Amino acid sequence: MKKEILFGINPVLEALKSGRREFFEVYIVKKKISERLKRVLTLAEAKKISVEWVELSQLKSLTGTDQHQGIGARTSRFPLSGISDIIDSIQPDDTNHLLLLVDNVMDPHNLGALVRTALCVGVKGIIIPKDRSVTPTPAVSKASAGALEHIRLARATNMVNTIKTLKEKGWWIAGMDKASDKSIFLSDLTGRVAIVIGGEEKGMRPLVKKHCDFLMSIPQKGPINSLNASVAGAVAMYEAFRQRHLS
Amino acid sequence: MKKEILFGINPVLEALKSGRREFFEVYIVKKKISERLKRVLTLAEAKKISVEWVELSQLKSLTGTDQHQGIGARTSRFPLSGISDIIDSIQPDDTNHLLLLVDNVMDPHNLGALVRTALCVGVKGIIIPKDRSVTPTPAVSKASAGALEHIRLARATNMVNTIKTLKEKGWWIAGMDKASDKSIFLSDLTGRVAIVIGGEEKGMRPLVKKHCDFLMSIPQKGPINSLNASVAGAVAMYEAFRQRHLS
Repeated sequence: MKKEILFGINPVLEALKSGRREFFEVYIVKKKISERLKRVLTLAEAKKISVEWVELSQLKSLTGTDQHQGIGARTSRFPLSGISDIIDSIQPDDTNHLLLLVDNVMDPHNLGALVRTALCVGVKGIIIPKDRSVTPTPAVSKASAGALEHIRLARATNMVNTIKTLKEKGWWIAGMDKASDKSIFLSDLTGRVAIVIGGEEKGMRPLVKKHCDFLMSIPQKGPINSLNASVAGAVAMYEAFRQRHLS
Repeated sequence: MKKEILFGINPVLEALKSGRREFFEVYIVKKKISERLKRVLTLAEAKKISVEWVELSQLKSLTGTDQHQGIGARTSRFPLSGISDIIDSIQPDDTNHLLLLVDNVMDPHNLGALVRTALCVGVKGIIIPKDRSVTPTPAVSKASAGALEHIRLARATNMVNTIKTLKEKGWWIAGMDKASDKSIFLSDLTGRVAIVIGGEEKGMRPLVKKHCDFLMSIPQKGPINSLNASVAGAVAMYEAFRQRHLS
């Protein structure tokens, strides 16, 4: 079985809580026992997971980063969902759902930030492409504050085919595109909607854009026209939330 | 005159464009001349600023970081605004304005991200406290993608007194507080509103919170209740934008 090393308090804590990964070992730095670390330790012990006390240098070497916050864990790999798992988990009579498609994003921090917000908004699943995309690594789990451990995330072999499948199943594909003059606030984001977000520099790939049902942008003022990709995604997801629940 | 070293393409480019800082010297790494760097170089030369070609190791040493993207600049310090400058710049008959108060935020990335969004939303100014707060350093300019170079930012000696002054001048003080059960989407954010955002872990300080006119939160679902502070700020600022322009 392929394994990976989670790092950081939230990723390890949320992975323990969600129960989706197999845990082989938790590593904790000998000296650094904060209240939050104690909580993780208690949970790991309750689940009878072996805990190894390590030196700071060992933990850095194991996790390959300084961002470990005194804790790491050797676990099974991130439990990818299938695209059909995500779509089929939605009841046919439940017609008000949100998916997130993330295209052309290479930066683990951007994907992690989008995952964190998506979980808070109640997004049903995230689909990323297999090629030209960051993968759901421990760094993404860290950047998501552990939210990755709870969300359904699938990798599409071909994003355009996935969009076609979604359309056949009655989903609307709403693409975020800076160049669009249609405001997110004037776009109908109720019903079964998949929001597509592209990378910070280049946006989504042209073929993906072409297959969206409509494109939309966030109105911007001032001398710099450049919201951060994860902020733009958050504003769009929350506008969909608002329209569903409050208008 | 106190000086500082800006780093990164966007901070140097936007500082040149905004013209608010005095430039003493631009440093560019000898080998790394991308199209975007050329654009900065052309602008610096047009403004007759001296350009020094340096080694990578020199630039790292000058800027104190690896995040320099091949460019740095020795400039005058960030041009702080006075609180009264910000307030008085607003016409008395113009009654629909947004300010951002950032309390208890220590992380340059969080402040930078808030500044970037604030500029895009059209916020009239940002006020941070003098104590227990990150300051508008070159790292904040970098995290803001250069947006800091255009925004009015003031430091308050006493945040509570600043809030009292704003109230006297007819501003409403809307505090973001996770514990509030009033949704931002059900809060009136039109008129003269100052949104107060606190740090990611602890939120704003209790005395600041006490002096807000009302508190509001972003509705959240799912197992983790923790939006990133800059994301929460962005969603709130854009809800204010939406209410002003589109409802």
